[in-house]
Amino acid sequence: MAQKYTTREEDYSKWYNELVYRADLAEHSDVKGCMVIKPYGYAIWEKMKEILDAKFKETGHSNAYFPLFIPKSYLSKEASHIEGFAKECAVVTHYRLKNAEDGSGLIVDPEAKLEEELIVRPTSETIIWNSYKNWIQSYRDLPILINQWANVVRWEMRTRLFLRTTEFLWQEGHTAHATKQEAIDETTQMCQVYADFAENYMAMPVIQGFKTESERFAGADDTYCIEAMMQDGKALQAGTSHFLGQNFAKAFDVKFTDKEGKQEYVWATSWGVSTRLMGALIMTHSDDEGLVLPPALAPIQVVAVPIYKSQEELEAISEKIKALGAKLKERGISFKYDDDDNRRPGWKFSEYESKGVPVRLAMGPRDLENGNIEVARRDEKTKEVVAFDGVDTYIENLLKAIQVNLLDRAKKYRAENTQTVDTYDEFKLKLEQEGGFFLAHWDGTKETEAKVKDETKATIRCIPFDQVKEEGKCMVTGKPSVGRVIFAKAY
Amino acid sequence: MAQKYTTREEDYSKWYNELVYRADLAEHSDVKGCMVIKPYGYAIWEKMKEILDAKFKETGHSNAYFPLFIPKSYLSKEASHIEGFAKECAVVTHYRLKNAEDGSGLIVDPEAKLEEELIVRPTSETIIWNSYKNWIQSYRDLPILINQWANVVRWEMRTRLFLRTTEFLWQEGHTAHATKQEAIDETTQMCQVYADFAENYMAMPVIQGFKTESERFAGADDTYCIEAMMQDGKALQAGTSHFLGQNFAKAFDVKFTDKEGKQEYVWATSWGVSTRLMGALIMTHSDDEGLVLPPALAPIQVVAVPIYKSQEELEAISEKIKALGAKLKERGISFKYDDDDNRRPGWKFSEYESKGVPVRLAMGPRDLENGNIEVARRDEKTKEVVAFDGVDTYIENLLKAIQVNLLDRAKKYRAENTQTVDTYDEFKLKLEQEGGFFLAHWDGTKETEAKVKDETKATIRCIPFDQVKEEGKCMVTGKPSVGRVIFAKAY
Repeated sequence: MAQKYTTREEDYSKWYNELVYRADLAEHSDVKGCMVIKPYGYAIWEKMKEILDAKFKETGHSNAYFPLFIPKSYLSKEASHIEGFAKECAVVTHYRLKNAEDGSGLIVDPEAKLEEELIVRPTSETIIWNSYKNWIQSYRDLPILINQWANVVRWEMRTRLFLRTTEFLWQEGHTAHATKQEAIDETTQMCQVYADFAENYMAMPVIQGFKTESERFAGADDTYCIEAMMQDGKALQAGTSHFLGQNFAKAFDVKFTDKEGKQEYVWATSWGVSTRLMGALIMTHSDDEGLVLPPALAPIQVVAVPIYKSQEELEAISEKIKALGAKLKERGISFKYDDDDNRRPGWKFSEYESKGVPVRLAMGPRDLENGNIEVARRDEKTKEVVAFDGVDTYIENLLKAIQVNLLDRAKKYRAENTQTVDTYDEFKLKLEQEGGFFLAHWDGTKETEAKVKDETKATIRCIPFDQVKEEGKCMVTGKPSVGRVIFAKAY
Repeated sequence: MAQKYTTREEDYSKWYNELVYRADLAEHSDVKGCMVIKPYGYAIWEKMKEILDAKFKETGHSNAYFPLFIPKSYLSKEASHIEGFAKECAVVTHYRLKNAEDGSGLIVDPEAKLEEELIVRPTSETIIWNSYKNWIQSYRDLPILINQWANVVRWEMRTRLFLRTTEFLWQEGHTAHATKQEAIDETTQMCQVYADFAENYMAMPVIQGFKTESERFAGADDTYCIEAMMQDGKALQAGTSHFLGQNFAKAFDVKFTDKEGKQEYVWATSWGVSTRLMGALIMTHSDDEGLVLPPALAPIQVVAVPIYKSQEELEAISEKIKALGAKLKERGISFKYDDDDNRRPGWKFSEYESKGVPVRLAMGPRDLENGNIEVARRDEKTKEVVAFDGVDTYIENLLKAIQVNLLDRAKKYRAENTQTVDTYDEFKLKLEQEGGFFLAHWDGTKETEAKVKDETKATIRCIPFDQVKEEGKCMVTGKPSVGRVIFAKAY
């Protein structure tokens, strides 16, 4: 039973890879860089989708669906967009296979060559703005507030499950507005939606801020982001919201007539989160025993395991536990009773621990006799024997407590691993020895940012929205700075 | 306001195309054969997804996600599969673009050629069974009951919005079983799930049956289907459930150890419905004034329009209607109050009629004075003035009545357009003059089926599950037959 797993301390990266398999979340497919998201992993992603989708709808957005394929020429229309990232992509050149004449199997039919190659979408700004062109004539057609749940493909050379895969699942919001201010407000609102989701559901504290120019989305005038700290002290960009200015409207010639009858280019935003959130969730909470899930995203919140020798004992225990299960379900708590006779309790305990089920119940003949039940919480790995009567209320409160505890724990970890540094030497030393987030002054130039990245691999994660304005000197050049930014190594 | 639309009688096909645009459901994109599903159309599809997804879960299935790309060699592994349909597909040959040296723009980088071409999935049996091979060792690993919501691509030369598009959205269930009987039971169960969904939510009566060998899914031992009749008398295959035997298990070498320790190939099913259901829904109920939606799938079930001259009137009406809206929402009825001052009531009436909103309310000063409200139903285009007090109950009952009426109407239409024929001459004559479904005897051979198809364009839609066993003579060859099958022209 006891397979030996790598601990976080031994090798964080290996620990992560093993955990994804151990908790049965995903696996590599035979197609380079593409993953299979397994049912348990997908169930967590489905919960994320459901909650985010409701938030998008509450804020006035509708879902729609745009084509998977983008004509090659569209990608060139917004110059910085294509320079930025659209080159590493899957290119469809043909539309038919045929049997080889020599009987050697299937070949691509050379006669079925496309006149213009199609790109599998790496992101959909271009195809969507090409549609918006036909949808927008007047200010009455604005705003357009659309979101799309879709798969996208970016040809990645080095991939890691959930964190960086060639194909991944995401949502991409694409909105069109009559005024600059309205678009900026939308960009801010969606960054806030992501931050709320991260904190209140993923139990993952995030810092909202502006990306520097070099870290911006290709084609954006401004990129806002949420940045989280993983348990190895590295940063993970968990979501971005872009103010696109009029760049795509100009590239696709999308104008509207305003209330005064004047023609104006439309203002745009786009915003997205992806299955990368799964990686962030795993690395924020999990431990050496496996996955740890916040109750708000756990497909199974409570699992119960009977401990018995005789069939008679099992029946008596099952009766109690099933009644409890019904009560929990009434409270909206997802519950599983695992009475599989082929597996021993110890195997089950370890299985649900690996899978991060927040609360595990166990009941044996003695518990039954004494009117008790054992309640174990996954986050702190503690257990208690509790009176069976009223345990449903106890569990409901416990789930809330676990949700709060995970966020508190992650906040504490982040606080302990965030420090203020004033000199480049101190920064370099502590970055290597301790890791984490560093609040430091920066002179605001690309050159300094690039130098730090080259020399230390750390990047500016963001200029926090709540940056304290203070006079300071850039830790690298000594030039003036107006406030500290966050440096860290990142996923 | 009054754009002239084509009627069903004038040109059914043109009526359909216009309706999809008129109701703002979808449009053609610039990418050949690919559609944009617009927010209103997508909202209907979302409702379909939500209901079907719940049914899949109730029957024990989980969702997962497999790669978009399939290595070319996989498609050849199941011989009849590739012969059947996998040749017209999008082929990815390269993974990078670059700037042309002559500055003429983006070109495909010839150095980034894939060793093995990737096919954009036309269906996922091959990539999924390649994964199942690693997941299945013992009978304890079975059954596997997985569904995937995904986009698929089949290169179509002639496309029509929703009915036949190069890219479409669908769900594909893929299950693995230890016994033949269990796989057959699953195939039957999922066909029944589709039939229930079609009748109880889409209000679309369907006939469940077996496909003939020539109409089977490529790679299946048996294909079950649900067949619906459109308002032009043509059949539309709305869903299929395949018993795949051990074909894919053999192709991908997927064996399991049974309880006796013997190695056996695994038994398989697959089943799917797609955005084609949107086409079926439109063509089952809609009329010359636009879309008609069953309440169970309507994104907006009830819309209310105020009729007023003064601001004072508007305020008094709004107060009443908003209170009603709150009551309807409490009953789980989706409600929209359209008090947009830029549009006149007549424009709004026509707009919501086009979009198939089941119930439209209108209230003017006289209604207000008399304590009344006008209630119009979309299906029968009738309206009544009803006492405002208690109208929430009235509306709830009306929505139920509309749902029932649409199904009844469609059943009646189908009954009126289904006939029994005994000679090929009678069949050919009536097929041309009257259309619809024809119950006729068939000798069970491919040759006869092919002859009928060549000569009349009609195909055998299915051998109904509830076929009456009776001795008869094939209408074409006079050879013996054991029961009537359904012939019709089809989409």
